[in-house]
Amino acid sequence: MSTPIKVAIVGASGYSGEELTRLLLSHPEADLTAVTSRQHAGQTVGQVFAKFANHPRAKGLRFTEPKAELLSRQAQIVFLALPHGVAAEFAIPLLDSGCQVIDLSADFRLKSAETYKDFYGHEHPAPALLQKSVYGLPEIHRSEIKGASLVASPGCYPTSILLPLIPLLRASVIKSAALIADSASGVSGAGRKLEMDYLFGECNESMRAYSVPKHRHLSEIEEQLGVAAGTAVVMQFTPHLMPVNRGILTTIYAAPTEHFTNAGEMAHVNQKIADAYRTAYATEPFVRLLEGKALPDTKNVVGTNDIEIAWRLDGRTGRLVILSAIDNIVKGASGQAVQSLNIMAGLPETSGLM
Amino acid sequence: MSTPIKVAIVGASGYSGEELTRLLLSHPEADLTAVTSRQHAGQTVGQVFAKFANHPRAKGLRFTEPKAELLSRQAQIVFLALPHGVAAEFAIPLLDSGCQVIDLSADFRLKSAETYKDFYGHEHPAPALLQKSVYGLPEIHRSEIKGASLVASPGCYPTSILLPLIPLLRASVIKSAALIADSASGVSGAGRKLEMDYLFGECNESMRAYSVPKHRHLSEIEEQLGVAAGTAVVMQFTPHLMPVNRGILTTIYAAPTEHFTNAGEMAHVNQKIADAYRTAYATEPFVRLLEGKALPDTKNVVGTNDIEIAWRLDGRTGRLVILSAIDNIVKGASGQAVQSLNIMAGLPETSGLM
Amino acid sequence: MSTPIKVAIVGASGYSGEELTRLLLSHPEADLTAVTSRQHAGQTVGQVFAKFANHPRAKGLRFTEPKAELLSRQAQIVFLALPHGVAAEFAIPLLDSGCQVIDLSADFRLKSAETYKDFYGHEHPAPALLQKSVYGLPEIHRSEIKGASLVASPGCYPTSILLPLIPLLRASVIKSAALIADSASGVSGAGRKLEMDYLFGECNESMRAYSVPKHRHLSEIEEQLGVAAGTAVVMQFTPHLMPVNRGILTTIYAAPTEHFTNAGEMAHVNQKIADAYRTAYATEPFVRLLEGKALPDTKNVVGTNDIEIAWRLDGRTGRLVILSAIDNIVKGASGQAVQSLNIMAGLPETSGLM
Amino acid sequence: MSTPIKVAIVGASGYSGEELTRLLLSHPEADLTAVTSRQHAGQTVGQVFAKFANHPRAKGLRFTEPKAELLSRQAQIVFLALPHGVAAEFAIPLLDSGCQVIDLSADFRLKSAETYKDFYGHEHPAPALLQKSVYGLPEIHRSEIKGASLVASPGCYPTSILLPLIPLLRASVIKSAALIADSASGVSGAGRKLEMDYLFGECNESMRAYSVPKHRHLSEIEEQLGVAAGTAVVMQFTPHLMPVNRGILTTIYAAPTEHFTNAGEMAHVNQKIADAYRTAYATEPFVRLLEGKALPDTKNVVGTNDIEIAWRLDGRTGRLVILSAIDNIVKGASGQAVQSLNIMAGLPETSGLM
Repeated sequence: MSTPIKVAIVGASGYSGEELTRLLLSHPEADLTAVTSRQHAGQTVGQVFAKFANHPRAKGLRFTEPKAELLSRQAQIVFLALPHGVAAEFAIPLLDSGCQVIDLSADFRLKSAETYKDFYGHEHPAPALLQKSVYGLPEIHRSEIKGASLVASPGCYPTSILLPLIPLLRASVIKSAALIADSASGVSGAGRKLEMDYLFGECNESMRAYSVPKHRHLSEIEEQLGVAAGTAVVMQFTPHLMPVNRGILTTIYAAPTEHFTNAGEMAHVNQKIADAYRTAYATEPFVRLLEGKALPDTKNVVGTNDIEIAWRLDGRTGRLVILSAIDNIVKGASGQAVQSLNIMAGLPETSGLM
Repeated sequence: MSTPIKVAIVGASGYSGEELTRLLLSHPEADLTAVTSRQHAGQTVGQVFAKFANHPRAKGLRFTEPKAELLSRQAQIVFLALPHGVAAEFAIPLLDSGCQVIDLSADFRLKSAETYKDFYGHEHPAPALLQKSVYGLPEIHRSEIKGASLVASPGCYPTSILLPLIPLLRASVIKSAALIADSASGVSGAGRKLEMDYLFGECNESMRAYSVPKHRHLSEIEEQLGVAAGTAVVMQFTPHLMPVNRGILTTIYAAPTEHFTNAGEMAHVNQKIADAYRTAYATEPFVRLLEGKALPDTKNVVGTNDIEIAWRLDGRTGRLVILSAIDNIVKGASGQAVQSLNIMAGLPETSGLM
Repeated sequence: MSTPIKVAIVGASGYSGEELTRLLLSHPEADLTAVTSRQHAGQTVGQVFAKFANHPRAKGLRFTEPKAELLSRQAQIVFLALPHGVAAEFAIPLLDSGCQVIDLSADFRLKSAETYKDFYGHEHPAPALLQKSVYGLPEIHRSEIKGASLVASPGCYPTSILLPLIPLLRASVIKSAALIADSASGVSGAGRKLEMDYLFGECNESMRAYSVPKHRHLSEIEEQLGVAAGTAVVMQFTPHLMPVNRGILTTIYAAPTEHFTNAGEMAHVNQKIADAYRTAYATEPFVRLLEGKALPDTKNVVGTNDIEIAWRLDGRTGRLVILSAIDNIVKGASGQAVQSLNIMAGLPETSGLM
Repeated sequence: MSTPIKVAIVGASGYSGEELTRLLLSHPEADLTAVTSRQHAGQTVGQVFAKFANHPRAKGLRFTEPKAELLSRQAQIVFLALPHGVAAEFAIPLLDSGCQVIDLSADFRLKSAETYKDFYGHEHPAPALLQKSVYGLPEIHRSEIKGASLVASPGCYPTSILLPLIPLLRASVIKSAALIADSASGVSGAGRKLEMDYLFGECNESMRAYSVPKHRHLSEIEEQLGVAAGTAVVMQFTPHLMPVNRGILTTIYAAPTEHFTNAGEMAHVNQKIADAYRTAYATEPFVRLLEGKALPDTKNVVGTNDIEIAWRLDGRTGRLVILSAIDNIVKGASGQAVQSLNIMAGLPETSGLM
């Protein structure tokens, strides 16, 4: 084995940071040299997360204050697992000192500073970096990730929506208008936040929508769909909170470009969809096209970096229904970020993820 | 208090039957004189359902074999909580002997025997009764329920979809085309069925769609929407299974009839929606219009006969998003059936339900 | 129906207060005239708890600031659903102005101010009232509750432990030494508290013990067991947090006073246990003795004021294992408090509870 | 890397078999050459378990009919993940043909055929093998496992009880009499069984005991404790079913051999307990002694091969309370079996488990 690549995590105390820590501690070709957390500085990783207490590579790994200068000497690639708005201030000095950065926040996911302002309510703190950053969806932007210095790892909902839609838009099998996505997410999607809404008694035996009709993730979804479609896309998206720890189940409604009025025409459209998906994903290690009777189920992807995708044409409405399932913390956050790491570092893409 | 009305339940061993038993045992103006169950015949209600063991009105109440002739002497109104397809054979002799029947199955919910065959896969066993039966959605068909001899109590998903849509279709505020409903149901919706799919380990920490794209409930939903709209309706409906015992959360996408392009026009459309809902439901005891910031949440309706309804116009897409929440076993089944009982028997509509 | 008794709730915003509100709004012989909450003062009950928005008796009921003088004119019996330590300051002026008080906190459950200090860490604020208060376990102290001006409604764990043990201690069927109780409680037992420990992600798919080995509830458990046994009792108690909203399942280990070495002797001891329980509870409306194969299950009592009790003698160890299940918020708090209300007001004891 | 060891799984369709498959597919030094299942014979592993569909080492791995002769040529070490009673018939021919066997059933866990008959209700099918088999608790029987041809991997409850108790019994820090263990298990402990008791609606929001007072696992627990104590042990054990997928939380009550009456004596006893645990487990990779404030929590061990252990002396009762947490399917079944594999094959003990 060659020398492992040195990596660090800034802000490792949230759910994404914890999962990143887990993945990188067991990564066969990465060396986790630093983890930072203002809250836990001075404590060992095992003291904060009991799960890692006996991990041989966690012994002696201690949370430190986040200092860009120090980090740039400790690691070649730095993960930022920080709240939106905070990541930008760390990214700049790290990039300046020659590190590569994989940011799990929303700070660098958009190309348009204007869209950022529209959805996040304030000016973007470092608009110049928006042009430099690469949207870290490996199945779609693999070649750009390869040479990127700044990767903006996608949001969880966007991952569950973009991977099913982009191949169909690129192949012009569906229209870019009238798209609707209806998603349900596990509570970990809200982060480790101390708010009434996320108490056990408020979430257990409960299902509810939120951020209707303009969730922030729409900005990156629409921007990426627009690139795939070659035209601006405005879509409908409704997120829901469901009582599970992890997982996103997304149901998408789309209109095929070719109208069908009988079984033969329907089979033809169905074949074009199947072709578009197979072309895009047949060899992708983390995409599972369900082409039989099975439908995506969050329990089949939780703990993995996989996305399950299935679709059904509706002969009655003429519409296409697409379903997808991911683990919001793995493929929707930390696993996908490690996938980008593997690409950037020239490692096998599945390294540490299977 | 006047003489209580005598009622009976045929098939009281499933979830709906159990809940009917609970509601009727505590109903101040109904006397539950008989409960039948082939499986439990001979046992007391308290032996089968521990919850009722000490209930004074459950003492001595014993499951019997279901025999129409006997039931017609024991009760004026008989509830059928039987599987689809089985209810019809009990309804006929009961009606013949002068009982009124409230059927919780799907057997009498459609007017069209042809639609029945299309969705249920076989000829309807008693097509003549389809014309006689009344669709038991009290907020919509109260006056017909009043004089009905046969009430077909609605399905759980249909209840959560029809109550939000009918007032808007009647008021021509939304188009009847391009309707989409996306629902998540608690596992009790599947009934007390011994199938792998409903084991704890298969449902817990899981979310999945099923019966895509043609769930049987679409037949009654579309028929009822068609009546409200004055034109045939074909819609999209995707049911999901979520890991809670009870509750349905439905998210509906509709197109307003009036296009809006600025805030003023949007406020105008919003007012028309509010007016349609208030006209329909302002005095309904079991409808809660959420007009503030709150969105429907299944935990707020579980154990009640209430439906929560909220809506949001989307200035970006021009679409209307409507959300509703019910308890699938109460408002979606047994509670709504008791509501019909109250109407048929001339009792206060909330009797035994608050 | 005679004039309903006027009641009020001080501190109605927690889980117990909300459940008390639900029970009293539907109580056929009580009139809930006031509910107080500093946090929600000015809002209607329906605004704070969506569940009650359409309840006819909740219309117009508005949270007020808690003021003893005003309350004493609005209600004859006042429920205190306040945190421990806060209840005492409200109880004194209410009692002085002639109200009867049912306190759901721990403030008046002990007779010994010394024990209070040992377990709660500070001097008791009103030791004189400790002698005046009655421990509100209706099945045990019914006659004293009848004439009480101050009832200290028991804790949830104590209820699940005392009801199974007291009849056996009184009948000298078990020894008072070496008692062990192992309990699991739903998360609502912790109250509506904004602490990390009670976030969904910390409780779901989790089971853990806490307050080992000296939980505060031991003080009232041991004091009450001591009275029943006629001698001081010191016992072992381990509470656990389990991922359900409601319910306590308690497993108790006790030593029968009579040793048994063969099947005949074992049957004899078993008969004495059965006799003791039947004598105590055969006619109790809220106690369900499971004498067949069934064992207590929290799902059978949630939403009810019932306790399920079963027992097994172990021929191998000579020990007695007793199991009980209650709803911690109903029989363990608000339901039991209403049971005391019914006794104090001379109403049927099951009024509003079945 | 040296040549990987060839392994096979007989009966890979249950929860333990599925988890074994997952662990062995990712094991860096084992080659899973065969998986058998009568039910799924002919299907690929990815068809049966969607999770493995894209796993490179699962491609082409197809379930076969279980045939000992064939298996003995395909694998050096064979795992049996079969129901109790069925494993014996497979073990004999496999052992005869020179394979080593790791059995996850209860068939070979006891030394005494008499105890087997007492607890399992029928004669042991291969009593001669009982003397040959080694009880596969690595932390306790590592050296015997090393040279074993037949390893009986422990039950889940026994693992959670034996690891906390054996070091204390060996060091004579606690008495062997009057031991009590109270455990709660996730529903996966019941296996993938189609029984009413394990439906979602029966388990969710439910907690209940079962098999009181004589669960079959008591036989192996008492036999192993007897060896550690040097005297026969009879103990109390109450298992409960809790609404989580995985995890066992065990609470144990024991009497220290040294009586303590003041803080100094208590500290002395506490030190002896700490010494016994540290001596036994300080270098064990899968044992986490919690010596601070934290108590074991199933969520901290689920998905790992770890056991968490903590203890508290009770100055009031003189008793010792010990708490432990494991993942019933990993440390309580498949992970522990892989740990034995590693020992038998001379691999690092943590290989494939961290």
